[in-house]
Amino acid sequence: MRYSKLFGKTIKDTPRDATLVSHKLLYQAGYIRESTAGRYYLLPLGLAVQQKIQKIIKEEMDKAGAQEMITPILHPKELWKETNRTNSVGFELMSVKDRSEMEFVLGGTAEEMLVDLVRKFQVSYKDLPFNMYQFSTKFRDEMRARGGLLRLREFVMKDAYSFHATEEDFKKEYQKMKDTYTKIFNRLGLRTVIVESDNGYIGGEYCHEFVVESEAGESRFLTTEDGSYAAHEDVAVFKRDNKNIDEEEKPLQEVEAVRGTTMEDGVKLHKKPLWQQIKDVLFVDENGRFILAIIRGDYDVNEVKLMHSVKAYRLRHATENEIREKIHSEPGFISPVGIKEIIEKNIELIIVADSSLRTIKNAYGGANKKHRDLFNINIDRDYKVDSEGDIALAKEGFETKDGKKLIAKKGIEVGNIFQLGFHYSSKMKGAEFTDINGKKKPYYMGCYGIGLARTMATIIEVSHDDKGIVWTEAITPYKVHLIEIQNSKLKISGDEIYKKLQDAGIEILYDDRDVSAGEKFADADLIGIPVRLVVSEKTLRQSSGQAGEKIEWKKRNEDKTELLSLEQILKRVK
Amino acid sequence: MRYSKLFGKTIKDTPRDATLVSHKLLYQAGYIRESTAGRYYLLPLGLAVQQKIQKIIKEEMDKAGAQEMITPILHPKELWKETNRTNSVGFELMSVKDRSEMEFVLGGTAEEMLVDLVRKFQVSYKDLPFNMYQFSTKFRDEMRARGGLLRLREFVMKDAYSFHATEEDFKKEYQKMKDTYTKIFNRLGLRTVIVESDNGYIGGEYCHEFVVESEAGESRFLTTEDGSYAAHEDVAVFKRDNKNIDEEEKPLQEVEAVRGTTMEDGVKLHKKPLWQQIKDVLFVDENGRFILAIIRGDYDVNEVKLMHSVKAYRLRHATENEIREKIHSEPGFISPVGIKEIIEKNIELIIVADSSLRTIKNAYGGANKKHRDLFNINIDRDYKVDSEGDIALAKEGFETKDGKKLIAKKGIEVGNIFQLGFHYSSKMKGAEFTDINGKKKPYYMGCYGIGLARTMATIIEVSHDDKGIVWTEAITPYKVHLIEIQNSKLKISGDEIYKKLQDAGIEILYDDRDVSAGEKFADADLIGIPVRLVVSEKTLRQSSGQAGEKIEWKKRNEDKTELLSLEQILKRVK
Repeated sequence: MRYSKLFGKTIKDTPRDATLVSHKLLYQAGYIRESTAGRYYLLPLGLAVQQKIQKIIKEEMDKAGAQEMITPILHPKELWKETNRTNSVGFELMSVKDRSEMEFVLGGTAEEMLVDLVRKFQVSYKDLPFNMYQFSTKFRDEMRARGGLLRLREFVMKDAYSFHATEEDFKKEYQKMKDTYTKIFNRLGLRTVIVESDNGYIGGEYCHEFVVESEAGESRFLTTEDGSYAAHEDVAVFKRDNKNIDEEEKPLQEVEAVRGTTMEDGVKLHKKPLWQQIKDVLFVDENGRFILAIIRGDYDVNEVKLMHSVKAYRLRHATENEIREKIHSEPGFISPVGIKEIIEKNIELIIVADSSLRTIKNAYGGANKKHRDLFNINIDRDYKVDSEGDIALAKEGFETKDGKKLIAKKGIEVGNIFQLGFHYSSKMKGAEFTDINGKKKPYYMGCYGIGLARTMATIIEVSHDDKGIVWTEAITPYKVHLIEIQNSKLKISGDEIYKKLQDAGIEILYDDRDVSAGEKFADADLIGIPVRLVVSEKTLRQSSGQAGEKIEWKKRNEDKTELLSLEQILKRVK
Repeated sequence: MRYSKLFGKTIKDTPRDATLVSHKLLYQAGYIRESTAGRYYLLPLGLAVQQKIQKIIKEEMDKAGAQEMITPILHPKELWKETNRTNSVGFELMSVKDRSEMEFVLGGTAEEMLVDLVRKFQVSYKDLPFNMYQFSTKFRDEMRARGGLLRLREFVMKDAYSFHATEEDFKKEYQKMKDTYTKIFNRLGLRTVIVESDNGYIGGEYCHEFVVESEAGESRFLTTEDGSYAAHEDVAVFKRDNKNIDEEEKPLQEVEAVRGTTMEDGVKLHKKPLWQQIKDVLFVDENGRFILAIIRGDYDVNEVKLMHSVKAYRLRHATENEIREKIHSEPGFISPVGIKEIIEKNIELIIVADSSLRTIKNAYGGANKKHRDLFNINIDRDYKVDSEGDIALAKEGFETKDGKKLIAKKGIEVGNIFQLGFHYSSKMKGAEFTDINGKKKPYYMGCYGIGLARTMATIIEVSHDDKGIVWTEAITPYKVHLIEIQNSKLKISGDEIYKKLQDAGIEILYDDRDVSAGEKFADADLIGIPVRLVVSEKTLRQSSGQAGEKIEWKKRNEDKTELLSLEQILKRVK
């Protein structure tokens, strides 16, 4: 490609709202332009990179035995009603009606579509398992679209769906996909951490994000130095250390406590450690149930874990009014002790305790009355809970169950794999296969996604310098970037080299413009193609006396230059 | 691919509504399934064919210097308002609002998007011309979606848009695209006729459809035996033969005419030839204007030509009431003679005459009164027209201007190319380039489309037999279809041959199922892969005594079978 002809030249400006380096560089180097927030044009350079990413994904998915197909973008809303996803999805659906008033959802993910397709066939145990994937445009009506290609409202996603006779069989495919994703991201030049994640309303233990460490990311996870453990903040587990567990239980005592409503106020007033205080957080779920989460004072409640433990979709904090009027308690002084006796009739209150409350004795905290606290509160003796388990937020410095220190990190989620189990097949009529005994059974499913444009942006976030993008061989839009510094004395011209490399089947971008050498060099660095070739009077002078004219060779990520013959270049590039 | 693992096996049934052979075969052979009317899943086989078509189009577009990019599917409605296309497009737009109430159109074509992109850049005459194309999903809310992939509501289209400094420059690109399309359809194995077509509200003489002759098509065109002329029914021109042109003009005469309202009633009553009668057809346009089209009695009015001649978007026939109340004439007795004197005040009436009225003298027809006709009507002398030209519908048997007989044909439009001229660049603010004198000017544009799925269906419409699809080498989903007829005596098994061909990089579908030979043969014919290989006891017995085991080779479109060694097969397939 002649750069003079390429649509989408470099530009000095950056978009006003650009904060991320990938956003700035993709814009400046002529890879993308914004249409509306979160929706981009991919210019020829940008599309070329996306296509290379797509090719690598396709190759590895095919090798793993997955089969590519494609669904319509407009999903009949009827299908989403069958699974109740019109109410439960985390991203906002966009709906559209056709001229006959039929309602469609703009596809965000395609579980229902795949199940709907598969149930059109008479699937038997012999046909299972299979894994079908597509590259298709997805729509998410995100509240905030982040800069550039990192969080889009419209993007191409590779989404795959596997169908199995049993959970056991699914597990094999899950491992295969984990390996396949690892290969894909390796080939793309990305170092990913496989992070245990929350599987939302579907649940189950098979749910992982492939995360690339980056300050630009929104995925917060905890890992150990040796990498043996990595889990998203939402699900990370840790070991609660025992505190005064050997202390004898003292009698419960109510005291006056003229203090503020924070945990620190309690510590200051009573001059007791934070960990000995009970932290009480009162939530209300989507059905109006009250949930009292209690935890050791030095820990925080993890709302995702809490939601799963009570099977809620959404939680919000109770208001001060609700605490007073419905619970008959007092903000800042809530206590599990006796709370069920004082609440308004007809109110459902569920007390959920973190297991950390088993690591302390003689705790202190509110007394459900203003300016009154309790001392020597002990679980079982003074209060009972409806549910007990892990509802704590893991943090840097905490320890894993096997005693390794947790480190907090941020990263970009480039892929995810998770079980769907029977979630869709049990809800959708006829989503079943015939087993070996001729009996109809729902299939067990898995799901596997990679966002292409986000992957592109992520590669730039981790591979750039202050001059521009640094592409790897695998996904660069062109293999070499040829620059001619014009001079009438050139015996071998840029045009000739361009033609020869093109004829050899090498993807080449040729800067044939009539602009300064400096501008050409700067543009080459900005665009980021891994190999730069320069032909100029200087390169020819330096090569005089040797056989043939020489061309300067430089790698984008090295400073060293070499003078090579065309033959040598052809050999190296191939 | 092992057929036992392929998703989308053959089936005996056809869809209830299927009338087209491509629809039936794509369904039966496992290439497609319907989601909702006009929206299809492409199963692995179907997508493989579409991808081959896409690859060929991409290769030829790239060779022609066009650059691939991609626009979002959601087009901001603002852009379509700039060009007034929300009112003027022929297909129904689908609109959607996001959570912030911003309105989008689901892309049907992308002229506005491309212009919007290009105007974000400072384009100078040096950057022009360029041609950008994309493969993207398009949406058309068609009233009727036809069976299978021939007329879809959602489909992948290759749409290209070229930008030029001048009309002269556009003409070069137009010719290049005509040549490129010819190459593309040749490679796809389609014989296309390049048919002059109507360019709708944009107009201009550069507008052609690439049509494949087929009874399944909706494109009606007229052509000559030698193919030197081909034009869509909407625009086809022909020579009007002179009738009684040398006759002397006789005095106008009003007579009693107790007859019905058809042309035939006039012929019967007066015993004069049909061609001598004036045919009057009264229309109303979208602005309420009345248009009286008059033409020689043996011709019909071509409404497309008529619309262009009066610059109307839509025409409907005037009602009987309107003819009586507004025009003060009589249905079946309308006449251009004196009509402007009798119509209701404030009514705009435009009289448009076909040039065929110059080929007759002393015509007869209505007198704007019930049961009254006029004899010896002569143009200019008895009535004046507002506009005169070609508003006649060409028909089979008519002659071209150079005297060749027109033949009527039907076909499927697989591609189209047309000028956009300044239509979009003049309407959209900032859609301009800087010319050599530093002056801003709108660019001249062209547009070039191919529907991929329709192309696939068209290939089947013209390439099938009563057993199934007959793919060509270029777009077959697999190059060879291997069948093993199981037998324990086989020394070289299907599995081995499959592996060897796969290792040699040959795309192979391997029917490894435990079903009858007959079923495998029938499925192979239905699926339509060009080469069928059979390994069985029979093929081995026949090859005994010869060096190595032999495999039966048969082409899908031939009856002949041959026994070949694996080496011979590898050589032939490569």
